[in-house]
Amino acid sequence: MSILIKNATIITGATDAMVLTDHCIGIKDDLIEFVCPSSELSSEFQADTAIDARDMLVMPGLVNAHTHSGTTILRNYAGDKKLEDWLFNHIIPAEMKLTPEDVYWGAKLAIIEMLKSGTTSIADMYWHMDYAAQAFQESGMRAVLSKSPLMFKDMSVDLAGCVEYYNKWHNTADERLKVYLEVHSTYLYNPDLLEEAAKVAKQLNTGIHIHLLETKHEQRETYQKYKMSGAELCEKCGIFDVPVIAAHCVHLDEQDYEILARHKVNVVHNPSSNLKLGSGIANVPKMLQRGINVALGTDGAASNNNLSLFKEMNLAALLHNGVAEDPLAITSSQAIAMATSNGAQALGLNTTGVLQAGKKADLILLSTKGAHINPITEPLSAAVYSAQASDVDTVIVDGKILLANKELVSIDEELVIAKVKEIARRIIE
Amino acid sequence: MSILIKNATIITGATDAMVLTDHCIGIKDDLIEFVCPSSELSSEFQADTAIDARDMLVMPGLVNAHTHSGTTILRNYAGDKKLEDWLFNHIIPAEMKLTPEDVYWGAKLAIIEMLKSGTTSIADMYWHMDYAAQAFQESGMRAVLSKSPLMFKDMSVDLAGCVEYYNKWHNTADERLKVYLEVHSTYLYNPDLLEEAAKVAKQLNTGIHIHLLETKHEQRETYQKYKMSGAELCEKCGIFDVPVIAAHCVHLDEQDYEILARHKVNVVHNPSSNLKLGSGIANVPKMLQRGINVALGTDGAASNNNLSLFKEMNLAALLHNGVAEDPLAITSSQAIAMATSNGAQALGLNTTGVLQAGKKADLILLSTKGAHINPITEPLSAAVYSAQASDVDTVIVDGKILLANKELVSIDEELVIAKVKEIARRIIE
Repeated sequence: MSILIKNATIITGATDAMVLTDHCIGIKDDLIEFVCPSSELSSEFQADTAIDARDMLVMPGLVNAHTHSGTTILRNYAGDKKLEDWLFNHIIPAEMKLTPEDVYWGAKLAIIEMLKSGTTSIADMYWHMDYAAQAFQESGMRAVLSKSPLMFKDMSVDLAGCVEYYNKWHNTADERLKVYLEVHSTYLYNPDLLEEAAKVAKQLNTGIHIHLLETKHEQRETYQKYKMSGAELCEKCGIFDVPVIAAHCVHLDEQDYEILARHKVNVVHNPSSNLKLGSGIANVPKMLQRGINVALGTDGAASNNNLSLFKEMNLAALLHNGVAEDPLAITSSQAIAMATSNGAQALGLNTTGVLQAGKKADLILLSTKGAHINPITEPLSAAVYSAQASDVDTVIVDGKILLANKELVSIDEELVIAKVKEIARRIIE
Repeated sequence: MSILIKNATIITGATDAMVLTDHCIGIKDDLIEFVCPSSELSSEFQADTAIDARDMLVMPGLVNAHTHSGTTILRNYAGDKKLEDWLFNHIIPAEMKLTPEDVYWGAKLAIIEMLKSGTTSIADMYWHMDYAAQAFQESGMRAVLSKSPLMFKDMSVDLAGCVEYYNKWHNTADERLKVYLEVHSTYLYNPDLLEEAAKVAKQLNTGIHIHLLETKHEQRETYQKYKMSGAELCEKCGIFDVPVIAAHCVHLDEQDYEILARHKVNVVHNPSSNLKLGSGIANVPKMLQRGINVALGTDGAASNNNLSLFKEMNLAALLHNGVAEDPLAITSSQAIAMATSNGAQALGLNTTGVLQAGKKADLILLSTKGAHINPITEPLSAAVYSAQASDVDTVIVDGKILLANKELVSIDEELVIAKVKEIARRIIE
């Protein structure tokens, strides 16, 4: 299978040449074979499919580095609540009623929304993850999956089940699926368990996906309990000796920045969720200055209530410029990198996130026909500040077209929405 | 002309009954004749047009209480710049090249974007406003228009021209157009001129649209020059003796809240613009607690770069919850009120902003078919946190359908976009 994208304005995601105008992209099987000026297109390249991108912006597929896909079922439920009330009196009681099959349909709905808004790779952690894995296998997307070892019924821990999950799914589906170990947080895990989890991850030669320093409450409690910060605790227990996806990192002390930088911890900034739940505002410009890799995430649909990386990219740029009172606190190209190449790096996917020859063909085409995006005097500004999820016209992952003319190629959207509505009615009383 | 909307879930905007399910709305000419449960629909009401709203959310039309519609031409231009560099080295030099006809096309593009994202009323201030008025007259929208009296060539002031503009346009187009006096700001006007403008507004029995306390720099300079805040200066010069639309109000001192509340000044919060330009974050929860009417605005497309009130409504809710570290700092119903009834009040339009019998028929229907908005367990959460501009399916203003099935009824969108692209190429070198 080969695809030729012609007459394209390309946001490459590469820092040295962020925008290319009037270029072509040739795709052969799962790889980008070339990116070249239109004038240099060789007539030898025979494409099965040709896409005229004259009215499009071409970008790397977006990376959602922290989400809980099954929670789309809980979207628009229990709004306007304090965090503890929201979580313990509403969300968790509803989640307790979810069957494994419910999580399959919830993940399906997330996949539809994410593909239609240009997301091609994600890091997902939740329960009943065998069923989510099945949905991601079918989806064509890339996913780093983490299954919770916590058995919420009795709060016991099943790390062996996580190893089994790793063995079953890691590197399957043409290597689109990876498995990381879930370490929920330093407040649900005690130090012994953190150490054990770190050992298991090392043995499996995989990474860890963790929630870290999301709230002030968490920060305070960790200090009280352990006389050290959550970041210090992770360091001490060996968590940071493997690749880590650390979601949130809102409440860091001075030393924590140094610890995260030294261990090359990948931080996932979830601006919508942190704001909506009143968790606070992570100091992303400071992290970037310290050389920490910062990616973007939507968190779950229950605390966002969208899974659009275009929204998170826009919000990240706006928010930090406003907080710092500096319109250059996060530049457009930094925001794009956070949503693409930084995200790919966070997920350990060095083969994607940038549009260059030799990389995986994970890319999206945005329609530029809408009134709201014109004129596109500066493509980077247009992508960060004007583009909307609904502009996504075409999505290609691993060289396969998953969305064309804004329509999903192989998912029955109406069926999935109907199923999820039915589940939501059942579990929310 | 009569319209019947059936099987609707309605967000009324009224504080006592924010959500009604399975209701009908009857529209006769420009007015809402009734809102009633489907079971109580009288067979006597004969509708020329019937709309089945089974897969829709019905809301009051949104109000954009501060924008500069002509600046869509400058969208996506001069991103990633410090405010002074952005304004004085890029935006103003480009604006100097705008012809009156350019502003007509810029306003047309703004109108297309605003209607397609559910905005039905706006407050607009800019130059060449005769041409903008023509565009708004043709549009079918409501607009409170303000023409700048500043002649930027020699910084002279032409208040007589504003009176002439008032006499020409105020209450025209079936009273859809109103004219307020523009007082740009306390830094471009000296106290004598502020007093004179206040007198003119009083004589005309109209209001004033002003930028107030947008930046720290402005706040500091006003203190240095006048030994008082911008709000005190406005009070002293009589500006607050007429209805006022005060955009921004980011940098207020303790006493300023009291002054704004006492004079019933309408504050317009422009979260995207304030964040993007690094102006800072207005303390909206505090204003609301003090009983100040706070509406929402997009500001111009040059500093946003969208004109979507759905985005501003979402951002306002998220932002203040995050800053206050309190998920109830701005509730969903407060965010909706800011985008609807508070906006109508700010524009002096007490006939719109709420869906009730006797009010003007200004309303929008959102498609609820998208994956990203389902399930809609709580309609208020869905409207504030999940809905996107692209969900707007139908827009009715003054009882006339201006958008149907996401298509504009009487504006040639492609032509307008082509014109604006051409203008942008000419004025931006």
